[in-house]
Amino acid sequence: MTFEEARAQFPVFERFAYLNAGTMGPLARATAEAMTDRTQLDLEQGRGGKPYFEAMFALREGVRERLAVLLGVPADRIALTSSTSEGCNIVLAGLDLRPDDEVVTTDAEHPGLLGPLHASGARVRVVEVSAHPVAEALDRLAVAVTRQTKLLALSHVLWTTGQVMPVHELREQTGLPILVDGAQSAGAIPVKAGGADFYTVSCQKWLCGPDPLGGLYVADPERLRVALPTYFSVQSIEPDGSFVPKEGSARFNSGWLGVPSLAGLLAALDSAPDWRFERAREAAERCRELLSQRFEMVTEPNQSTLVSFRPDGDAAELAARAYERGVVIRDLPGTGLLRASCGYWTSDGDLERLLEAL
Amino acid sequence: MTFEEARAQFPVFERFAYLNAGTMGPLARATAEAMTDRTQLDLEQGRGGKPYFEAMFALREGVRERLAVLLGVPADRIALTSSTSEGCNIVLAGLDLRPDDEVVTTDAEHPGLLGPLHASGARVRVVEVSAHPVAEALDRLAVAVTRQTKLLALSHVLWTTGQVMPVHELREQTGLPILVDGAQSAGAIPVKAGGADFYTVSCQKWLCGPDPLGGLYVADPERLRVALPTYFSVQSIEPDGSFVPKEGSARFNSGWLGVPSLAGLLAALDSAPDWRFERAREAAERCRELLSQRFEMVTEPNQSTLVSFRPDGDAAELAARAYERGVVIRDLPGTGLLRASCGYWTSDGDLERLLEAL
Repeated sequence: MTFEEARAQFPVFERFAYLNAGTMGPLARATAEAMTDRTQLDLEQGRGGKPYFEAMFALREGVRERLAVLLGVPADRIALTSSTSEGCNIVLAGLDLRPDDEVVTTDAEHPGLLGPLHASGARVRVVEVSAHPVAEALDRLAVAVTRQTKLLALSHVLWTTGQVMPVHELREQTGLPILVDGAQSAGAIPVKAGGADFYTVSCQKWLCGPDPLGGLYVADPERLRVALPTYFSVQSIEPDGSFVPKEGSARFNSGWLGVPSLAGLLAALDSAPDWRFERAREAAERCRELLSQRFEMVTEPNQSTLVSFRPDGDAAELAARAYERGVVIRDLPGTGLLRASCGYWTSDGDLERLLEAL
Repeated sequence: MTFEEARAQFPVFERFAYLNAGTMGPLARATAEAMTDRTQLDLEQGRGGKPYFEAMFALREGVRERLAVLLGVPADRIALTSSTSEGCNIVLAGLDLRPDDEVVTTDAEHPGLLGPLHASGARVRVVEVSAHPVAEALDRLAVAVTRQTKLLALSHVLWTTGQVMPVHELREQTGLPILVDGAQSAGAIPVKAGGADFYTVSCQKWLCGPDPLGGLYVADPERLRVALPTYFSVQSIEPDGSFVPKEGSARFNSGWLGVPSLAGLLAALDSAPDWRFERAREAAERCRELLSQRFEMVTEPNQSTLVSFRPDGDAAELAARAYERGVVIRDLPGTGLLRASCGYWTSDGDLERLLEAL
């Protein structure tokens, strides 16, 4: 697949310099067609009978297998969820942390992780990393670990700055369980979830899937309580609710996932070219170089696919004005920053339009 | 809207005697069109920029208001969820029950409630009601209450037998908090959620919405902990995860809900005729009468829209054979029973086909 072919999959690029995959990825024509075809089938044939349920289970398995390949882990260690955030809740509710337990996190986490961390009842130790060089992150995080630390919980890629956190090194150095928020990594940069204990991802961002779907890798399913059971997480259940969980990490499945959405996601997962990561990295670097000629950059060189910078003027207003000029980026509330998301699909023309719109 | 007009909304009836809304409702043409139109818009315009997010919030509010009207409660007491089961997890995780607390439930609950009950850690007291006359249910349930009982948790309509449980009477008689599983009631029979403390519903069954969406009524949001926070449940959040919850029951919102699905659900909620409940009740009664001439009936007269009966032979095989003959019903695993779901859309012709197929 050439760059032009890959890019031509996404009709939005005919209209916009769409640089917002960190929120929602562009949709490919094949993805929308799969959703629409499945909806049409459900409309005409109904959502019942053996063929319907067989198709649903086959779609689930297909998605699960592809996510496993993407994350470099066995498929039986993947649960299907509706979002990264739901994965965080599944893990934190199951760990049964206590008020004197501590969790170490960074100062640049998304509410989807922070909320569940707080709800866990454990003490949350926030380590300042986002305004410091990435090279310092490992030490900064490691020194926050105490004898009370029961969990490390942080993003692989910080959603505000695009900095890549040393999650595997941190796991190795501390020997502590780690929950990785992979919302901004899966599909954006190469990921080996294997070194982590829990790795939770979104499918509607860098994987360009329908909203909302997600996946959760759990390395050792026997050691996490099934705190939020569903029909899709149990093998059998008694009248008092006691249950035999499904084999492997399927026991952490959230409930029913939309069949048209699963069909769309399967198409999306099959539409990414082999060279996705190299090209996305190049686009982000080019974006960073261009912006750095005019703006104060927040993102260091050679990080991920998110490029954050401090504009001259109000970030929200500038994002709105850029949208009117056909350029989709986002402001990061409370920071004064703008963020551009670059994918394997990003062209030089997109970046030129970005510069012009600012 | 005449019966013929209402029925003509659903293309599946041109092919099947579709009697399975207790699992998944039929989809109306307008519902599928709204999903497809929204998907097309997202494909072409991208999922970003102010118009996209404004549309998403407007769809959420529209769904919330209509669910509130349907359940006879104020809209600010409704949270949007992905399913009845998720609503059960949200409530049970937030109640912080202890091992010496007791919950009273029935012997005919769905895994979507039973799993969360077990996960709560409380002792679950199962009351046998499904093989007894409905008139006995109130007494049977009330005598199971002890001083340790902290919650009553049961279906408004039992998914196996269609029996209508006296949820409001039970709440009044015991004075205990009640969590009602409304998967088989909302959209099927008139519901006043107001008497309950927690009432959780599905939108893809009797409300004929896209899969999966749901709603949760919480009468007194201040008294339930936000155990599974999401981006959509908090007003503001600190770096350590402590947060100001949204006003009212929006604090129990689950995460991002699919925008095409919300668009479809809004269309579905607007497509039901005023006479939905009377007509559905009549169809179920007619179905029961016809089946009772040949089979042992499990469902008593004058219950809900589910009609369960004991066929001659293996229920799963009979359901599969019926499907081949264009009749969609389901077997209830482990019981030997078949279940037919009747809606306002069910015709005499559908029921004749059912009888012929058995």
